[in-house]
Amino acid sequence: MSRITIINGPNLNLLGIREKSIYGDQDFTTFLAALRDAYPAVALSYFQSNHEGAIIDKIHEVGFATEGIILNAGAYTHTSLAIADAIAAVTAPVVEVHISNVYARESYRHHSYLAKNCKGVICGFGLDGYRLALESLLTR
Amino acid sequence: MSRITIINGPNLNLLGIREKSIYGDQDFTTFLAALRDAYPAVALSYFQSNHEGAIIDKIHEVGFATEGIILNAGAYTHTSLAIADAIAAVTAPVVEVHISNVYARESYRHHSYLAKNCKGVICGFGLDGYRLALESLLTR
Amino acid sequence: MSRITIINGPNLNLLGIREKSIYGDQDFTTFLAALRDAYPAVALSYFQSNHEGAIIDKIHEVGFATEGIILNAGAYTHTSLAIADAIAAVTAPVVEVHISNVYARESYRHHSYLAKNCKGVICGFGLDGYRLALESLLTR
Amino acid sequence: MSRITIINGPNLNLLGIREKSIYGDQDFTTFLAALRDAYPAVALSYFQSNHEGAIIDKIHEVGFATEGIILNAGAYTHTSLAIADAIAAVTAPVVEVHISNVYARESYRHHSYLAKNCKGVICGFGLDGYRLALESLLTR
Amino acid sequence: MSRITIINGPNLNLLGIREKSIYGDQDFTTFLAALRDAYPAVALSYFQSNHEGAIIDKIHEVGFATEGIILNAGAYTHTSLAIADAIAAVTAPVVEVHISNVYARESYRHHSYLAKNCKGVICGFGLDGYRLALESLLTR
Amino acid sequence: MSRITIINGPNLNLLGIREKSIYGDQDFTTFLAALRDAYPAVALSYFQSNHEGAIIDKIHEVGFATEGIILNAGAYTHTSLAIADAIAAVTAPVVEVHISNVYARESYRHHSYLAKNCKGVICGFGLDGYRLALESLLTR
Amino acid sequence: MSRITIINGPNLNLLGIREKSIYGDQDFTTFLAALRDAYPAVALSYFQSNHEGAIIDKIHEVGFATEGIILNAGAYTHTSLAIADAIAAVTAPVVEVHISNVYARESYRHHSYLAKNCKGVICGFGLDGYRLALESLLTR
Amino acid sequence: MSRITIINGPNLNLLGIREKSIYGDQDFTTFLAALRDAYPAVALSYFQSNHEGAIIDKIHEVGFATEGIILNAGAYTHTSLAIADAIAAVTAPVVEVHISNVYARESYRHHSYLAKNCKGVICGFGLDGYRLALESLLTR
Amino acid sequence: MSRITIINGPNLNLLGIREKSIYGDQDFTTFLAALRDAYPAVALSYFQSNHEGAIIDKIHEVGFATEGIILNAGAYTHTSLAIADAIAAVTAPVVEVHISNVYARESYRHHSYLAKNCKGVICGFGLDGYRLALESLLTR
Amino acid sequence: MSRITIINGPNLNLLGIREKSIYGDQDFTTFLAALRDAYPAVALSYFQSNHEGAIIDKIHEVGFATEGIILNAGAYTHTSLAIADAIAAVTAPVVEVHISNVYARESYRHHSYLAKNCKGVICGFGLDGYRLALESLLTR
Amino acid sequence: MSRITIINGPNLNLLGIREKSIYGDQDFTTFLAALRDAYPAVALSYFQSNHEGAIIDKIHEVGFATEGIILNAGAYTHTSLAIADAIAAVTAPVVEVHISNVYARESYRHHSYLAKNCKGVICGFGLDGYRLALESLLTR
Amino acid sequence: MSRITIINGPNLNLLGIREKSIYGDQDFTTFLAALRDAYPAVALSYFQSNHEGAIIDKIHEVGFATEGIILNAGAYTHTSLAIADAIAAVTAPVVEVHISNVYARESYRHHSYLAKNCKGVICGFGLDGYRLALESLLTR
Repeated sequence: MSRITIINGPNLNLLGIREKSIYGDQDFTTFLAALRDAYPAVALSYFQSNHEGAIIDKIHEVGFATEGIILNAGAYTHTSLAIADAIAAVTAPVVEVHISNVYARESYRHHSYLAKNCKGVICGFGLDGYRLALESLLTR
Repeated sequence: MSRITIINGPNLNLLGIREKSIYGDQDFTTFLAALRDAYPAVALSYFQSNHEGAIIDKIHEVGFATEGIILNAGAYTHTSLAIADAIAAVTAPVVEVHISNVYARESYRHHSYLAKNCKGVICGFGLDGYRLALESLLTR
Repeated sequence: MSRITIINGPNLNLLGIREKSIYGDQDFTTFLAALRDAYPAVALSYFQSNHEGAIIDKIHEVGFATEGIILNAGAYTHTSLAIADAIAAVTAPVVEVHISNVYARESYRHHSYLAKNCKGVICGFGLDGYRLALESLLTR
Repeated sequence: MSRITIINGPNLNLLGIREKSIYGDQDFTTFLAALRDAYPAVALSYFQSNHEGAIIDKIHEVGFATEGIILNAGAYTHTSLAIADAIAAVTAPVVEVHISNVYARESYRHHSYLAKNCKGVICGFGLDGYRLALESLLTR
Repeated sequence: MSRITIINGPNLNLLGIREKSIYGDQDFTTFLAALRDAYPAVALSYFQSNHEGAIIDKIHEVGFATEGIILNAGAYTHTSLAIADAIAAVTAPVVEVHISNVYARESYRHHSYLAKNCKGVICGFGLDGYRLALESLLTR
Repeated sequence: MSRITIINGPNLNLLGIREKSIYGDQDFTTFLAALRDAYPAVALSYFQSNHEGAIIDKIHEVGFATEGIILNAGAYTHTSLAIADAIAAVTAPVVEVHISNVYARESYRHHSYLAKNCKGVICGFGLDGYRLALESLLTR
Repeated sequence: MSRITIINGPNLNLLGIREKSIYGDQDFTTFLAALRDAYPAVALSYFQSNHEGAIIDKIHEVGFATEGIILNAGAYTHTSLAIADAIAAVTAPVVEVHISNVYARESYRHHSYLAKNCKGVICGFGLDGYRLALESLLTR
Repeated sequence: MSRITIINGPNLNLLGIREKSIYGDQDFTTFLAALRDAYPAVALSYFQSNHEGAIIDKIHEVGFATEGIILNAGAYTHTSLAIADAIAAVTAPVVEVHISNVYARESYRHHSYLAKNCKGVICGFGLDGYRLALESLLTR
Repeated sequence: MSRITIINGPNLNLLGIREKSIYGDQDFTTFLAALRDAYPAVALSYFQSNHEGAIIDKIHEVGFATEGIILNAGAYTHTSLAIADAIAAVTAPVVEVHISNVYARESYRHHSYLAKNCKGVICGFGLDGYRLALESLLTR
Repeated sequence: MSRITIINGPNLNLLGIREKSIYGDQDFTTFLAALRDAYPAVALSYFQSNHEGAIIDKIHEVGFATEGIILNAGAYTHTSLAIADAIAAVTAPVVEVHISNVYARESYRHHSYLAKNCKGVICGFGLDGYRLALESLLTR
Repeated sequence: MSRITIINGPNLNLLGIREKSIYGDQDFTTFLAALRDAYPAVALSYFQSNHEGAIIDKIHEVGFATEGIILNAGAYTHTSLAIADAIAAVTAPVVEVHISNVYARESYRHHSYLAKNCKGVICGFGLDGYRLALESLLTR
Repeated sequence: MSRITIINGPNLNLLGIREKSIYGDQDFTTFLAALRDAYPAVALSYFQSNHEGAIIDKIHEVGFATEGIILNAGAYTHTSLAIADAIAAVTAPVVEVHISNVYARESYRHHSYLAKNCKGVICGFGLDGYRLALESLLTR
């Protein structure tokens, strides 16, 4: 059975509440339940934090012990060298996901410190991006 | 009764101790007591943290439930996209305050990631800037 | 009795007429009358000009003879080193005011040549910013 | 009858005298008389100033009361945010004209602060550019 | 009889279909017929291609044998040094035209590689810009 | 039945031959046959060209008549404003795909002119990225 | 008899009053009288203005009718393309003078728009720089 | 007896596990024990955290009460203005240490926000750098 | 017998006609005949196109089947990542040639996207540069 | 008796031979003799070298033992931090001189590493600049 | 017995004389004698030059024949690619030393061309930095 | 008989010893002997120095008295304006040579201060580049 961890970064605890025109109105709990149903063979764990350090701690915790990490680091994507180093340090493949199309937004969202250390990047497909990331990890 | 929260960011716990030529020698506790006395009709809560994530958590907590936030994010003003996103996510108006005149200091203090999502910015007036921010929120 | 001068720069003669979605629909004359009423102990003089040189002349004129200047230099904020030098040359404290939140507008409005020579900056609070500036000068 | 105002900026009072290899040897007075003859149905007024503030004053004066402005702001094109704001403030359409091909000259002449607020830009056609601008305003 | 060639670049075959809020809803065929009617003394040929190389080929073909070229190179304006070199290589004057006001759009549309080698530039007047360009070539 | 078109840009005709350490050793024909087998309900057409103009022509041809385009524009991703405009002009959603993780390569490959006009971006998953893109289009 | 004009720009009317540590405590009137005494064969006229346009007007007025201009344009040195164009337009040689060593001050004072159109530049010698400039014009 | 605190930042808990070609294969616990043995006269305390805020808290805690801090802030070196401010706020001297030669790595590792507020910087000597830093603090 | 292909890019079909002060007045056909005469042991093929895509197609065609390519990509040198990728993809060594000294011309001609993937670069020697390139390929 | 040293840097040994349109056709020996005649009360020594190190050695040698240095460091002006440090290290005032108007030449000649450590700068007056520099040192 | 060479660059012959507030008032000769006494097992040679070329010559001379080089290249640190290449060319490890904390000084002192080719960097510890560098070479 | 001088700059005395993977393992003496044998009609002189000033001295010495200079200035290529000025000052044509393909190395090696003043540039062909440069000078 594959162990995969989804890690969501800052402000993503407000999904379904915050800026719905950008992020949609679905809350993550409902989405996650449906995703687990669709992939019963995957042990899908979930973690959300607004703390950069907590995200690093979690990457360390699961990064040597699971088959993959799906990471939406939110705004830390664009500012956190420390998370980028954490991704490089662990052995599990990490897939970077963004709900919105970051390239159609402010220019400071176009650059990711994390991407070069990740397996790949998926962005712009709403919550379905998490499913595509899961697919990509399962078909390696 | 108006509920307003003052949030102070990193190193502002050292007010009155640290670099007095820049930040003055008054400690924040004394100032806050006087401010509460001057505005008895305002329920003024206070929070200080050196943790970026804790500031985001606090903005989420009070940002849907109070009439305004007075935010001095200290150095995170210049580096934190995640706090900027938190401000955009909540419904309470946020006023950015700086004790010193940041424009008369190092160039990396001239840029604020937060300002564009705030109602307005007040800087350079010492601790009195918090009072001006409070005034601005009350006269909306 | 405190003598304070408000100086408005280019295009601010059109307040209430020009781009109301940005600058509001109140004309400055009405606002100024109310402000004078609210602060009877202040001798509040007013000057507006679209001419950079005239603003410098006025700063020279009142900058050694009053207790403070409230300056909204409009677009000259972002282009006029000469006004910045004038502020540095005089002895009265100068408070920089902007009606709109300049950080939420075009990037060339994010930089002020004047700010480093001013006592402080207040922006984003509409015409109420002038009142806050007056407060800040009175409580020095 | 259409009312159109031509506004010429700094140093354009020296047309026919100054740097003839760039600006030609025709003086503007002669050209203007011929233009008026060619367009008898247009009330064509003319203003020249070396003062940025005077150009702003004139744009305010005619910008709510005529059918169009033909503006050659000379070097202020590249430095004046205040004139750009004046163009945005008025209701008359403004056409930016340059006698020389500014793109074939120094790089600092390639950028116009004004253009984005104008209806359009015409450059490189000598004094005939003013006629083309007039044509463009009449055919709206 | 003057021979003038209009060359339209990439995506301009979709005029009247594509992004009507920017480019208008008139198709170029109809406009061209009217233009030919209005200028019976001009032999006005027309060429459109989405291929950078084909545009260069056409400039070579007509650039030594006609009295002028009206060129709307679309997005190649901002990226094609090769077309710029082609313009410099031929003897016919080239007028650069843009339908929309490129200065009011994305910043990468503000720079033209072609302009410095052209006689002049006309932008922002919709399809009427082609007529103004024709005027400018006839009155040389 | 869904009609989807895959468009591959410059040098992608050499897949399986060129720089195998970056792009892998599988040729696209074999991959495409397998993909068609896996998605029998999709009418999957394919086009490859080294010509920027030909890619634009193809986007125009299928962009109003199919349910989606999967576009790997190769190096044109980083240089072609004209393809970006073509994507914006058509009505079919376009998904940008890259075989390699472009963020782990030269810095000039980190910027895409196309992405902001696309529905989303998928990169770094080898040829499996085309399948993920197909998935994303089918689940809209 | 040589006719030479000294033109002083913004804030230089405050010499001897303003920022004495930078500009010294001598007023210009006293200095000018001594300079005229020392050079009786020179008709030395003087003009000061805080208005960019007035400086341009004066350059036009004396630039075709005198043997030289000594110009300290103050802060306009660093921002005024229009004065630079005025210098290029006239026939009299212009010598750029600065009282302080601008290269030892803020970086935005290191660049002069005017210098390339002047005969030469003299800076850092206090008021004596005007005498050196006069010397340079007399020994041409 | 000298009190010195070593503070290690993000991902340095993985020393000996992570990217051994860069950081070596020695774990910090073993190294620290040997260092304490070698310097029995020093009370050497140790703290590691992946949390920026926790590092600031620790600097505040020991920065007024010890004789020196040896700080390897890892990736926060390059992004944290808040830690830089904390260093400036305390009275104990801080020595910045890096295990690898950061100047031989990615360009974003060449800049340190912290260095200007530190006593000095030591980098490239592996774990021995901590000993050198200790030496430098003892010989002040 | 060595097989070598010369590929000339955009506007180089006009050699001897275009901008003779830069490119000389010799046509390429005459030069090529003389070069073939001088190197009878080399099978020297020739291709010229103004189409970026056609140049890529040709590099693919000969890049696996000849002993070397001499490439003067003209303006595409400075803008075409796609040609750069094509050079990297093939096995034949490619020598970049420029007729003029590009470093003595506009700054945008100083950068070559192609050079890093080529064996070497020869520029500034007129048509003789092609002979030197041929020499360099024969002496490998 | 004043001791003043003139130091000329690289390529200035070719004065009167090299690029006469820029530097004039007078050789320095002749000029120097005339200058010594004109200022008999000054002990004027002279040194020229193409070696950066030799110029530093000379500044050290005379910089503590003379009343002033006139330095034309030629191209080292724009590249030598080491000479700038030498100027700061010595006690004699240094006047920077350039024969040509460097601001009217290539942009890399507009910046001087030396100027901020010098007393002042004189440029554009040909060899007469050395005399003006001498004047400035004598009138201190 | 270890052979180590200390190489000091430009202006470091003035240690104890020059800018004492930055570099201290100890002369290097005294310091060196003490260092040799403290490390009797090291054959410590010393070289100082203001000439970039002489420093390169010395690196070549000792770089293949000693156990290490301690290099304080002074201002050449920030400008000399040639010294950087010399360090890369030799086999002895080189430790870069700076007496002052260069990161607390002018921004052009923050970048070192040499560092990436050195074993490590030590800066800010005054002359003690040479001892630390020696320690680092002995403990390799 | 043609007189040609080869000048090699810093670190090139180590050819065959230094970084063989980049520069090859052939020493220059052997190569030079073979080159002289191959071109008996050329008086080929040779000079190498690590001193920028010595290279300038040599260019002055031979630059008016020979038929050409082949210059590999090593790292000074990228930093020496003074050598660039020397090349411009002399009358002999100078050909810039690099052994390695500098465009495939660090970005600071992509820019040459010298190239614009040279006849042409040859790079990437190993020591054979000197022969090609010789060829280019002989066929002028």
